[in-house]
Amino acid sequence: MPEPAPPLAPTLAVIGGGQLARMMAEPAAAMGLPLRLLAEAEGVSAAQVIPDHTVGDYRDLTTLREVTAGCPVVTFDHEHVPTEHLHALEADGVAVRPGPEALVHAQDKGVMRERLAALDVPCPRNAIVTSAAEVEDFGFPCVLKTTRGGYDGKGVWFVRDAAELEKVGAEAFAAATTSGVRIIAEELVDFRRELSALVARSPSGQAAAYPVVASTQKDGICHEVIAPAPDLSPELAGRAQEIALRIAGALDVTGVLAVELFETDDGRILVNELAMRPHNTGHWTQDGAVTSQFENHLRAVLDLPLGAPEPRARWTVMVNILGGPDAGVGRLYDGYPHALARDPHLRVHLYGKELRPGRKVGHVNAYGDDLDDCLERARHAASWFRGDLGNESE
Amino acid sequence: MPEPAPPLAPTLAVIGGGQLARMMAEPAAAMGLPLRLLAEAEGVSAAQVIPDHTVGDYRDLTTLREVTAGCPVVTFDHEHVPTEHLHALEADGVAVRPGPEALVHAQDKGVMRERLAALDVPCPRNAIVTSAAEVEDFGFPCVLKTTRGGYDGKGVWFVRDAAELEKVGAEAFAAATTSGVRIIAEELVDFRRELSALVARSPSGQAAAYPVVASTQKDGICHEVIAPAPDLSPELAGRAQEIALRIAGALDVTGVLAVELFETDDGRILVNELAMRPHNTGHWTQDGAVTSQFENHLRAVLDLPLGAPEPRARWTVMVNILGGPDAGVGRLYDGYPHALARDPHLRVHLYGKELRPGRKVGHVNAYGDDLDDCLERARHAASWFRGDLGNESE
Repeated sequence: MPEPAPPLAPTLAVIGGGQLARMMAEPAAAMGLPLRLLAEAEGVSAAQVIPDHTVGDYRDLTTLREVTAGCPVVTFDHEHVPTEHLHALEADGVAVRPGPEALVHAQDKGVMRERLAALDVPCPRNAIVTSAAEVEDFGFPCVLKTTRGGYDGKGVWFVRDAAELEKVGAEAFAAATTSGVRIIAEELVDFRRELSALVARSPSGQAAAYPVVASTQKDGICHEVIAPAPDLSPELAGRAQEIALRIAGALDVTGVLAVELFETDDGRILVNELAMRPHNTGHWTQDGAVTSQFENHLRAVLDLPLGAPEPRARWTVMVNILGGPDAGVGRLYDGYPHALARDPHLRVHLYGKELRPGRKVGHVNAYGDDLDDCLERARHAASWFRGDLGNESE
Repeated sequence: MPEPAPPLAPTLAVIGGGQLARMMAEPAAAMGLPLRLLAEAEGVSAAQVIPDHTVGDYRDLTTLREVTAGCPVVTFDHEHVPTEHLHALEADGVAVRPGPEALVHAQDKGVMRERLAALDVPCPRNAIVTSAAEVEDFGFPCVLKTTRGGYDGKGVWFVRDAAELEKVGAEAFAAATTSGVRIIAEELVDFRRELSALVARSPSGQAAAYPVVASTQKDGICHEVIAPAPDLSPELAGRAQEIALRIAGALDVTGVLAVELFETDDGRILVNELAMRPHNTGHWTQDGAVTSQFENHLRAVLDLPLGAPEPRARWTVMVNILGGPDAGVGRLYDGYPHALARDPHLRVHLYGKELRPGRKVGHVNAYGDDLDDCLERARHAASWFRGDLGNESE
């Protein structure tokens, strides 16, 4: 094999081979930005589309150093790289974006809650708890979360009363002990709906705020997003964007920051979670915004000027394609003929993954002037790919 | 290296590692469609973004067979694969799209002119010529073209009078003899402007026609495209689309067909060239249409239903980034900070190529409601990347 030519642009290292890295690869290819990937295994989602990839363990510093060697900047598909390794890479001279001091707030809910309180950002009432008795003192109903390692509904327990605490408390504290993390109790917010405020921020401090969206969860996993959030008052939308921009600035976030929020019936917004990477609630931007969250993440971490975050359509609806309980019959590709023929405006994103129960394997975007039409189109297509429609009357 | 998992979708073989294949890789990644590439060399444009690639010679049947093994369909970045090899692949059971019977019309201008005449498609007056005397008989001014192998202004000679014929005739006939092709003489059309009608067509016969665009050439290379063509009468636009659809159907084209046209002052349109692949005059669709030409090419050759070809903006302007005579100072990437900061709505496409004199290395798209604004933004950005602006007052 002849020696490859020197790169035309700085090579960006990306840690983690999931679909977020895969979707970064699309704008990277478009913009001529070379990527180097650390993938968990051969054939994972992003490794299918990024030639310059290494298979290895992101918890191993030697591997991280090999992958980032010669790369001025490293960014992430997920938030699980150990903080001490990020500091070591910084000491090597690699710009870690987002940096470890910022990222810890997306990794550790205890640290996040403490910091947001100091920033006077409205959050659900919360406290670190170390025993069932402390949970009772905190009060019901509440939700218990491991401070680290939880995602997509894992590491989360709902506790409505003492009886439920009896059932799940032991499991929660055992899980925390096993993985060496803490448990945080949070009031169970009686929210009207969930919102998400997504911003991109560059090391120079430039920031771009996307329209605030409404998201619907199913079993703790993002299921559907409407952009912009319907009937959201401009005042509340502005406040949500202001909160996201304030957090991004105060924490010195570089790249995309997603702030998941609860909107309460009495017109408050409370921060639920932070993510410092492209986020499921931002997938609508691929087809619904001038600049996708993936492109703006790349532009932000490379300290290039950000692209316009404005919407290109009145409404964009994103629905995830998630394996149902009976998933696995047929191949996802077989959903294409009907879904595309029914809706020539539909945008389909598949991640190169087999359909399995509970697994996110893709999403669809439908945009247009009529929200009901977008909802119907996106829901139909996602159900079709999932294989749900056989048992449903349309 | 562990055995990769079986593909989730049929693998599409793509012959040729240029920017057209690279730009196919973006929607392929988005849609979860695996590609296998035959690249001319390691590190070429498409090989940078398609992991499953082989380096080899597309004129070698054994290589073609290795690359297409197990692929139900093969398509192309260029039109230069020998016809007999395409027939051999078809005999192997690979669906060649576009097929050799169609593709020959994009490969051989003599065959193309003969066929279009039989289809009653308006063309410039033309004749195969074998000597300077026959060119004189044909009449001046005319343009001489090699029937095969010409592109981007190569293999083309303008002959305004006998003196010019004396100068270039020998060169033209020598070039034809050397490469074993013929020379076709065509009347030099006194055109008002050049148009392009782009359609996608699937093996099932479904077709989608993009809006007709106006293109401007510089030194025989596409330089600028305005979509849709300004002040084009609906009648003429319809006729251009009808011609493209008729050709696609009659020739059984699969994939994208670009029909380059002359619009004359007296309201006629004449076919100039055919291309059976995504085309430079269709790059605006990446940011300006619901479905890009690259995605519709993939959908067409895989016989998936086509996506809507309609525009997403009132105007989209595409300007190529082409190395000027002084190209080569600095790196293309260095153009990003200014270009992106000046215009957050600008869409930049770079092909992973070094800037060299005369080389197409990327393009920009600017869309919006105001044509003059789009033109100014796209031209400024392209000039900036080319490095032209140092010597120009803005």
